[in-house]
Amino acid sequence: MAADGGQQVLAVDLGGTNIRVAVVSTEGELTYRRGPRTDSKDGHARVIQRMIDLVNDVAAAAGLGPDNPVGVASPGPLDPNTGIVLFTPNLPGWRDVPLGPSLADGTGRRVSVANDGNCAALGEMRFGSGKGARNLVYLALGTGVGGGVISDGRLVDGIRGFGAELGHSVVALDGPRCTCGGIGCLESFVAGWAIGYEGELVATTADGEAILAAARGGPVTAGAVAKAAQDGDPAAIAILARAGRALGAAIGSFVNIFNPEVIVIGGGVAAIGELLLGPARQSIPSYSFVANRSCMRIALSSLGDDTALFGAAALALGNPTDM
Amino acid sequence: MAADGGQQVLAVDLGGTNIRVAVVSTEGELTYRRGPRTDSKDGHARVIQRMIDLVNDVAAAAGLGPDNPVGVASPGPLDPNTGIVLFTPNLPGWRDVPLGPSLADGTGRRVSVANDGNCAALGEMRFGSGKGARNLVYLALGTGVGGGVISDGRLVDGIRGFGAELGHSVVALDGPRCTCGGIGCLESFVAGWAIGYEGELVATTADGEAILAAARGGPVTAGAVAKAAQDGDPAAIAILARAGRALGAAIGSFVNIFNPEVIVIGGGVAAIGELLLGPARQSIPSYSFVANRSCMRIALSSLGDDTALFGAAALALGNPTDM
Repeated sequence: MAADGGQQVLAVDLGGTNIRVAVVSTEGELTYRRGPRTDSKDGHARVIQRMIDLVNDVAAAAGLGPDNPVGVASPGPLDPNTGIVLFTPNLPGWRDVPLGPSLADGTGRRVSVANDGNCAALGEMRFGSGKGARNLVYLALGTGVGGGVISDGRLVDGIRGFGAELGHSVVALDGPRCTCGGIGCLESFVAGWAIGYEGELVATTADGEAILAAARGGPVTAGAVAKAAQDGDPAAIAILARAGRALGAAIGSFVNIFNPEVIVIGGGVAAIGELLLGPARQSIPSYSFVANRSCMRIALSSLGDDTALFGAAALALGNPTDM
Repeated sequence: MAADGGQQVLAVDLGGTNIRVAVVSTEGELTYRRGPRTDSKDGHARVIQRMIDLVNDVAAAAGLGPDNPVGVASPGPLDPNTGIVLFTPNLPGWRDVPLGPSLADGTGRRVSVANDGNCAALGEMRFGSGKGARNLVYLALGTGVGGGVISDGRLVDGIRGFGAELGHSVVALDGPRCTCGGIGCLESFVAGWAIGYEGELVATTADGEAILAAARGGPVTAGAVAKAAQDGDPAAIAILARAGRALGAAIGSFVNIFNPEVIVIGGGVAAIGELLLGPARQSIPSYSFVANRSCMRIALSSLGDDTALFGAAALALGNPTDM
């Protein structure tokens, strides 16, 4: 602990588009923010060198000594024990990349790495909408659907750290094919790509006029479906209601499985709002026990785009109960 | 620790039909077994007095001092922090019953209470098919479907201890109605009652001859369906294949969510064997990540009817990592 009462850590969020780096204090003060492009086409060695340089620059600017640790939120699957990224669809060519060890070497600091969903759960628990909770489920509704689970203050991530793939829990045995190769995953209903795909299907029919118009000649995205729905288009509203119902079923399962205090929902698709979240909320009672859901609240993420960055900081800060 | 190198605890499994009590050692030696009828119609006060007398008798017979603790596996939902049973379908009239405090009073011992699914998971980890694992999912396929989850050596049971209701995770958004009031729960496909119900439906059709014959004039049970299937009846085989496929989908979800080392399957319905478990195993790859399932094995419970009793002992013995 520093004399000012707050420890400071270096937080890194490795994204497909940007590398975000910042200094974060135990109190959640975020300073010295940087966010250059990842430029993943340069290959992992250069991306990692870029991360090392960023961390060293920010640490120097903030006047941090070598004892301030680094937390990294990375796309997965990765092994949090070794810091090795197995592969990741968002960063082409990454296979068995020793992200953690390389960063530790290049910065001379203690480095912890976890996947972005798990980091986000830690971030929401320490700094965000889940503050004070020790049993939390985080759901990231974005292009894909990610997640993180905290049980009694600790991450639930399994023997190799590959757990909490909440987007790939089955909600429909005979449902749509998912990009993961599976069938009927939550993601295949509520991910950005899934909502866009449903929109595309409708756009080819007589009911698709409003959605087509919202797409303005481009591909039909979740955003176009949301726009048409917000303008009152019944076909678009029905697409979001279907996605919301599947989301509610999955939340019901998570409520029964984890008995959490809070389910925090983040990601760009969550920003669609009530047209998606209303049907979700309505369907939860059909898929969960009263006893379990009556001690649970649902909250939107309060950390926005910085959820994983705050999560990386929370990871570096360690378990509050261990401090 | 006793001089002989093994601590001994008193284990109690409160079932709808029998109360099982025994002394269990850290090495898993089970002695002084008792198993009188629960006679739950007498009301909870008498049932609890019966449990107190049993524990005191067994403790006296085994020559145990007052420091040997008691572990209790009880139907739930219950609050493991207070030992209060909220209610339980198997024991009529039980509502907010202070099972743990009453047993502590009546025996003068330290008493821990957990629901039978969670206890069973602890039992399988310490004494059974999950020995040595720290990340384990237990599934009890019986009249209903229960479960327990252990992550990094600790129970995942949520803020009030109501978690791990694995039988009530959704596998089919638009599936059959479950006895819990929900829709498309795993239990509504693979529980004894669900298989019996499917059998009854088929028994009213031209394809139902073999199942009807197996029921011998009584109600169509899961046992009758299993018997007809084992005799080669295609309709009965199809019922079990459908249940097995739903089981495989749920296991796929649990593999993605928990990244466990082992999934232990117990309960009477599991004894049906390959006609149910074969289709389950076949469908798992359609519902899970390669990375997650490649570090996981599936094992049948090796503790049989004593799973919850060994689990109650494991509960009383505490977390091995804390010892």
